[in-house]
Amino acid sequence: MDYTPAVIISRAVAENLTKASWIRRMFEEGARLKQERGADKVFDFTLGNPEIEPPPAVLAAARRVLDSDAPHLHAYMPNAGHPRVREAVATRLRQATGLPYTASHVLMTVGAGAALNTVLKALLDPGDEVITVAPFFAEYTFYAENHGGRLVVVQPRADLTPDLAKLEAAITPKTRAILVNSPNNPSGVIYPASTFVEIEKLLARTARPIVLISDEPYKALVFDDVKVPEVPPLVTRSIVATSWSKSLAIPGERIGYLAFSPRMAEAAELFEACSFTSRVLGFVNAPALWQWVVAEVGDQVIDVGPYREKRDLMYEGLTRIGYQCVKPQGAFYVFPRTPIDDDVAFVRLLADEGVLTVPGSGFGMPGHIRISLTVERDTVVRALPGFERAFRKAR
Amino acid sequence: MDYTPAVIISRAVAENLTKASWIRRMFEEGARLKQERGADKVFDFTLGNPEIEPPPAVLAAARRVLDSDAPHLHAYMPNAGHPRVREAVATRLRQATGLPYTASHVLMTVGAGAALNTVLKALLDPGDEVITVAPFFAEYTFYAENHGGRLVVVQPRADLTPDLAKLEAAITPKTRAILVNSPNNPSGVIYPASTFVEIEKLLARTARPIVLISDEPYKALVFDDVKVPEVPPLVTRSIVATSWSKSLAIPGERIGYLAFSPRMAEAAELFEACSFTSRVLGFVNAPALWQWVVAEVGDQVIDVGPYREKRDLMYEGLTRIGYQCVKPQGAFYVFPRTPIDDDVAFVRLLADEGVLTVPGSGFGMPGHIRISLTVERDTVVRALPGFERAFRKAR
Repeated sequence: MDYTPAVIISRAVAENLTKASWIRRMFEEGARLKQERGADKVFDFTLGNPEIEPPPAVLAAARRVLDSDAPHLHAYMPNAGHPRVREAVATRLRQATGLPYTASHVLMTVGAGAALNTVLKALLDPGDEVITVAPFFAEYTFYAENHGGRLVVVQPRADLTPDLAKLEAAITPKTRAILVNSPNNPSGVIYPASTFVEIEKLLARTARPIVLISDEPYKALVFDDVKVPEVPPLVTRSIVATSWSKSLAIPGERIGYLAFSPRMAEAAELFEACSFTSRVLGFVNAPALWQWVVAEVGDQVIDVGPYREKRDLMYEGLTRIGYQCVKPQGAFYVFPRTPIDDDVAFVRLLADEGVLTVPGSGFGMPGHIRISLTVERDTVVRALPGFERAFRKAR
Repeated sequence: MDYTPAVIISRAVAENLTKASWIRRMFEEGARLKQERGADKVFDFTLGNPEIEPPPAVLAAARRVLDSDAPHLHAYMPNAGHPRVREAVATRLRQATGLPYTASHVLMTVGAGAALNTVLKALLDPGDEVITVAPFFAEYTFYAENHGGRLVVVQPRADLTPDLAKLEAAITPKTRAILVNSPNNPSGVIYPASTFVEIEKLLARTARPIVLISDEPYKALVFDDVKVPEVPPLVTRSIVATSWSKSLAIPGERIGYLAFSPRMAEAAELFEACSFTSRVLGFVNAPALWQWVVAEVGDQVIDVGPYREKRDLMYEGLTRIGYQCVKPQGAFYVFPRTPIDDDVAFVRLLADEGVLTVPGSGFGMPGHIRISLTVERDTVVRALPGFERAFRKAR
């Protein structure tokens, strides 16, 4: 499509659509491949869309809301969400962190994407900077730019955890926030507690307050009895942004929250600012029905067993072939190095073998690919020979 | 609260919160009044929150989604929404307008607020202008500014419909859109077909294409057999933004849509741009469950009888006292002139009588007040003596 920004759509959006056109072409190539070879001979690892269904308790809780005689369950409520729902979330946060969260530290959002836009609009003036660590969720770039900000990307250590020296070096007088995502999309890596201990020290040294935003939608999806560190006890000025999309397998329903640490002097100010930004950005409030549901059954988690099994199959299969890969401890992605530096070229080689993946360039880290495990187990098994052939061809 | 933007929140947000503090004070005064006098002696006409429940068919449709065995009902879908849902909306639009709407002209949104932000981000470059007609929904100012734009407000004719000469005079090379809301919040006025015929002529004369955005969440809430004109057959470059918040009494659930007129050469470009902006603004998609519901029962409408009755009681009561008022034909507001020019002062006089209303200044039209009818019938009856006492005091 030929974008003519002077005529109708904005220059910035037209530019972004043009930049994104290679992704669209890749999807189109994938669709063409499926048509040519048959969908069962093409293995699509590009989408992070859970293929499983919500736990029965979640649907049962939703039915109870619809059957309830209580009035105004579907009406407007305070923009931050129903106080009773926020209190339920605060109770879980108190238990997990030992910190005195109350309903006034919790703001219900239309998923994690809404949570991040809401808090970034509250924080950013034009030209302000948000630092993140590669590899990172590609949408962060847009989220910062939506509000006049700019995303600054710092390369990680070899184990794909933050490099604190590089993080500190990236801080400028314009830095307002550090945004991290652990368990990480696309790497599946969990940042250790020591990372946050170091971030706390670093933030204590800055001239102007900087907030840590911890984006945690994959927190409940972890393997091998690994514990994801609780960030708020470690970092004073911290805000958790998350959703139930992954833990309850309801990404289409858009329900999440922002939690402002009670240790933060500015928690009340941020809560009020975010109630305003959530409203004026057009979110208004998180969907009422799903607020009631997560208040009741928000601590349910889908069975992570199948993801662990697919992680094991894929990780062991790839390393046996010769791929270098940090073993994912959570989320549902594997993020191996490509045998050649040009990840986009390698994605094409894989596509020739009927295997669709996403180049690491899209996550700020060329020389890698993202493999999403939201597929059947059998797809992993049948795709590994294709991963092997492409690897041999590339060497 | 003392906002310290240099410390944490952005200057723009801090300024907006400070500007909005008089509204907060009014709400606090209202709450104090209720506490002092007893809630039954204070008549609160400030909130546009439907007090009624969704039609039973709506809740039944939601139950059917939860009971369905179909897979992936709560999963991600294309950002624009489920194709089957969009097709259902397109079918209704075809029937209503006679225009060849298809699923690719319809984008499901997280309510009308999301629809407006999505399309304004797609249209606006920094400094671009959006024209609206007073009185207007106060959030429009923020919606334009969110995306670097500026809202330009044009005063209406005496009957509160658009003054076309003033509208044309407000057009500059930076104008990208005209945004109108009919049936109107706060006035309840319905713009006649002739307004849109004139807008079409006007848009044909501009050097650069300008889009008409028709914000129609109150379209189904009309009285006296009045028909709200269908805008797309009258205006070539038109986009409808709407929600089911009012027609199904589910404002807390956030479900609406954008419809790009098939008569518009740029419809496909706008659809693609809005799919992108809806995604990156963090809406991602409209809540899945409510998409399925509106596909099935989106043409249901709450019983408007009680609103008509309250409109009649309030309108007749006020005019009998001596208030000047355009008779609302839709929505659930009455917007009389205040007997003194200073609407904020008059709102205080009313509050002394136990009657809470919103000053017209908040809607770009001083010298008026907005009275919301989302209250019990009895509240209207019991509040009228207070409206009368304040009117006498002010003269």
